[in-house]
Amino acid sequence: MKLHQGMGPNSYRVRIFLKEKAIDVPMVEVDFAKGEHKAPEFLKLNSLGQIPVLELDDRAIITESVAICRYFEETHPEPPLFGSDAVSRAKVEMWNRRAELVIFATIGNVALHSDAFFKDRLTQFPAFAETERRAVPKKWAWLDRELADGRPFLAGDDFSIADITAGVCGWLGDVFGMEIPASLENVKRWNERVRSRRSWNA
Amino acid sequence: MKLHQGMGPNSYRVRIFLKEKAIDVPMVEVDFAKGEHKAPEFLKLNSLGQIPVLELDDRAIITESVAICRYFEETHPEPPLFGSDAVSRAKVEMWNRRAELVIFATIGNVALHSDAFFKDRLTQFPAFAETERRAVPKKWAWLDRELADGRPFLAGDDFSIADITAGVCGWLGDVFGMEIPASLENVKRWNERVRSRRSWNA
Repeated sequence: MKLHQGMGPNSYRVRIFLKEKAIDVPMVEVDFAKGEHKAPEFLKLNSLGQIPVLELDDRAIITESVAICRYFEETHPEPPLFGSDAVSRAKVEMWNRRAELVIFATIGNVALHSDAFFKDRLTQFPAFAETERRAVPKKWAWLDRELADGRPFLAGDDFSIADITAGVCGWLGDVFGMEIPASLENVKRWNERVRSRRSWNA
Repeated sequence: MKLHQGMGPNSYRVRIFLKEKAIDVPMVEVDFAKGEHKAPEFLKLNSLGQIPVLELDDRAIITESVAICRYFEETHPEPPLFGSDAVSRAKVEMWNRRAELVIFATIGNVALHSDAFFKDRLTQFPAFAETERRAVPKKWAWLDRELADGRPFLAGDDFSIADITAGVCGWLGDVFGMEIPASLENVKRWNERVRSRRSWNA
């Protein structure tokens, strides 16, 4: 088994997940900056030219970071990071998707449509990036209201993949100059709780 | 238990899923066109003002269509629509996400940034919509190459939620004038296979 991974938020999500599960997987570094993810050899693994990619021993391929995490959840159920019964599994799915669709996608749009790194990779619309940039603090403010009930983690009492996704959103915001607004006390407490975990250094 | 749902691709995905599972859930119609999803009473159910929303008997709330489907997968495992072992569950997650991130998101961007319905709901960037519109046939062409191995469904031999998502992309494309290119034989066969299921009339 090999995990092809490298820079960027999606590989980071998988590395944190593996560290939380204490799973050791051989890794192949894919140099995103050198475009190794678009090389013909790599495109045979993932026709979308994206990392991470999990290559199983029988050469079966799993792409998409959450799909890779789900594979390891199945093979190493403890500690559960996708919930442990019907309601908690649905809540984790809900909060992982809310983190992705509300926060991750907005920060991602800013980066994709304004950062020099993506200039030759897609048609950038800087005005769209600016609209999205102004929306980012509002998205965190929404999460702050949602966390006002004092629960420790997004989906409830237990740390889950939803916290990994949202925590990586905070990290991604730092990278692209969109820090979490300091006035949001609930998000701040949650973020410190997540970032102080040993897995964060993954 | 009540499913708050209405127009649009996400409620449709859940209705198809329920019909595949032969689960009967009382439904509350939310009139998207009248803005009922933004009414104060509804925002108490889902602060994002989006449908569908599943309200359980103890008043617990599940939002996000795939999270709602996952709840029903847990409570009604047969027939499995999220895979049945570690690899197939990961493959279904992978293909559902690929359908969402590659095709659904692109068609969605065209609709959001060009359709009159969304004019007062967000800042539209028509040039972005046009770039995305031109990309849609390329996304289907990518899927056509992926299906060239002759497998009947996106994640393999079995129909899954990934086929529901991608099938609803085809439907959404029809609604917004972006039909699947007729030259894509593999996608065409797969699409006919999916649309001929009884669940499609959900």
